[in-house]
Amino acid sequence: MPERPSEFQLIAELFAPLAEAPGAFRLKDDAAVIAPPAGQELVITTDALVEGVHFLAEDPPLFVAKKALRVNLSDLAAKGAEAAGYLLALSLPSGVGMEWLTAFADGLRQDQREFNISLYGGDTTSTPGPLTIALTAFGFVPKGTMIRRAGAKPGDLVFVSGTIGDADAGLALLRQPQDTSHAVRDFLVHRYREPRPRLSLGHTLRGLATAALDVSDGLLADLGHIAETSGVRIEVDAHRLPLSAALQAVWGSDTQARIKAATAGDDYEIAFTVAPSCVEEVMRAARDSAAITEIGRVVSGGEAVLMDLEGSEIAVPKSGYTHF
Amino acid sequence: MPERPSEFQLIAELFAPLAEAPGAFRLKDDAAVIAPPAGQELVITTDALVEGVHFLAEDPPLFVAKKALRVNLSDLAAKGAEAAGYLLALSLPSGVGMEWLTAFADGLRQDQREFNISLYGGDTTSTPGPLTIALTAFGFVPKGTMIRRAGAKPGDLVFVSGTIGDADAGLALLRQPQDTSHAVRDFLVHRYREPRPRLSLGHTLRGLATAALDVSDGLLADLGHIAETSGVRIEVDAHRLPLSAALQAVWGSDTQARIKAATAGDDYEIAFTVAPSCVEEVMRAARDSAAITEIGRVVSGGEAVLMDLEGSEIAVPKSGYTHF
Repeated sequence: MPERPSEFQLIAELFAPLAEAPGAFRLKDDAAVIAPPAGQELVITTDALVEGVHFLAEDPPLFVAKKALRVNLSDLAAKGAEAAGYLLALSLPSGVGMEWLTAFADGLRQDQREFNISLYGGDTTSTPGPLTIALTAFGFVPKGTMIRRAGAKPGDLVFVSGTIGDADAGLALLRQPQDTSHAVRDFLVHRYREPRPRLSLGHTLRGLATAALDVSDGLLADLGHIAETSGVRIEVDAHRLPLSAALQAVWGSDTQARIKAATAGDDYEIAFTVAPSCVEEVMRAARDSAAITEIGRVVSGGEAVLMDLEGSEIAVPKSGYTHF
Repeated sequence: MPERPSEFQLIAELFAPLAEAPGAFRLKDDAAVIAPPAGQELVITTDALVEGVHFLAEDPPLFVAKKALRVNLSDLAAKGAEAAGYLLALSLPSGVGMEWLTAFADGLRQDQREFNISLYGGDTTSTPGPLTIALTAFGFVPKGTMIRRAGAKPGDLVFVSGTIGDADAGLALLRQPQDTSHAVRDFLVHRYREPRPRLSLGHTLRGLATAALDVSDGLLADLGHIAETSGVRIEVDAHRLPLSAALQAVWGSDTQARIKAATAGDDYEIAFTVAPSCVEEVMRAARDSAAITEIGRVVSGGEAVLMDLEGSEIAVPKSGYTHF
């Protein structure tokens, strides 16, 4: 079992260099200072990842770090926020040594560069249980412009970014290797391990989307959240769901595959609703940020449902995935 | 083993009612909005508590909740911040049922009233390991007024609020009952379970203290942090350490007891330094918030040390306590 570094060593060598923002004081204080730019306010979110629940013990630490960060950045993206920084509470079992932690910190560093963010604070503690990473991320929006879940209206159209189902298929391949090409496997595993927070799409949607969220529990389950808070019904056309070529190579593209994709977790794409009058502007604005696909419509009523080509509801056994 | 509620039930029944601030959206969104009052900025901190490491499995959940909140509020207090809210990432083992969680939420509710704060967001996940509570708390200060660790200068005097060593003695009594009076036991156990963040003292110290932090690792260890970041030496007079009557009833008040108190963890008092010209103002201002005691001085050099009546350094085997 590798020897765990001291808390002092851990902070001084690995984490203090990540606390680049002036208000983070290189982690040499009890708290950090955050000053939103003039006219802006904070958007803040927290998500915890537990080994064996949210990631696998054998997942490379570089990707564990990125995933912990990105699932939070994905929330900020869906809300239209400019990502700014994060705080990190790490609970470490005794078996985690300097090698693992160095690679973990490397993952954070890479993503800090990529998303232009800084570590602002943290806490490290020991645990007799599994490695647990609680991360709180924050960003900024002009006052009053955070995109809410509530706000979808009958008549709005429903969109999703990227493709869905990939991460779930990638996880399945990690759990039980299948006879697929390397390219297919690599693409899907990558989608599971390294979700891509759609930050620039999110900024684009500010003032245009009537509601948005990131797809983490499963597309239908998450659209169900918009339906509930907005007091509307959302109809998703199964045949319009964007499925990657890699996913189709593994799952096919029939109705069963589409049900699976619409209820698979960990997509970290943005699902959003737009008034018809804004659709053209959204399409134009999204051109430079991420592929988006129109997948359905908002009508009056409740819940989110999957529809077939004939316009009938498809029975879905379970709308999403929960880590609880 | 009690049945665990669903995540939906948990959020709807226990946690949504705690999300009282408008920007928390009753937890019905992916993120919260925080708008600092005009001219103010955020002070933010995170601390995780792990069952078996930071609290005992048999600790009442009401107190576990308060402790998780208060250790974070204590950081805000020491920085001079007005507490405003918190986010909570809970990792729950399967054995934790509705009864435990209801009492836990009661503790949060009581403290929200007491400290005038709101829950702003959270995440609940399952864990195969021990109950883990990661809490991120934030507050506000007028721009540029957060009290830092860096700032102590030779010539400054050193103060601490309240009494020290109590929590450690309380924990010892919980672990191994001793023959003491009920009153002594109750006082010390209470000090362990229900630390009191010195928020109003902290506000008072803004603009007056040259450096401050909350005493969590042990008085000497924490003053060592001020010494290091300020580039000074801090001399603490052992005979001036404020020891409660209850602590003296258990530990006595000789040098050994004083070494123990100065290196015991979990005090959650504020240690701070003040220029001689401001001492009178500090004493006057602190009158309404918390008892404070002058315990030493800042000189040039490095580290924090304990001194005897003759002015010689007392050898201290270990300056503090670590949960890592």
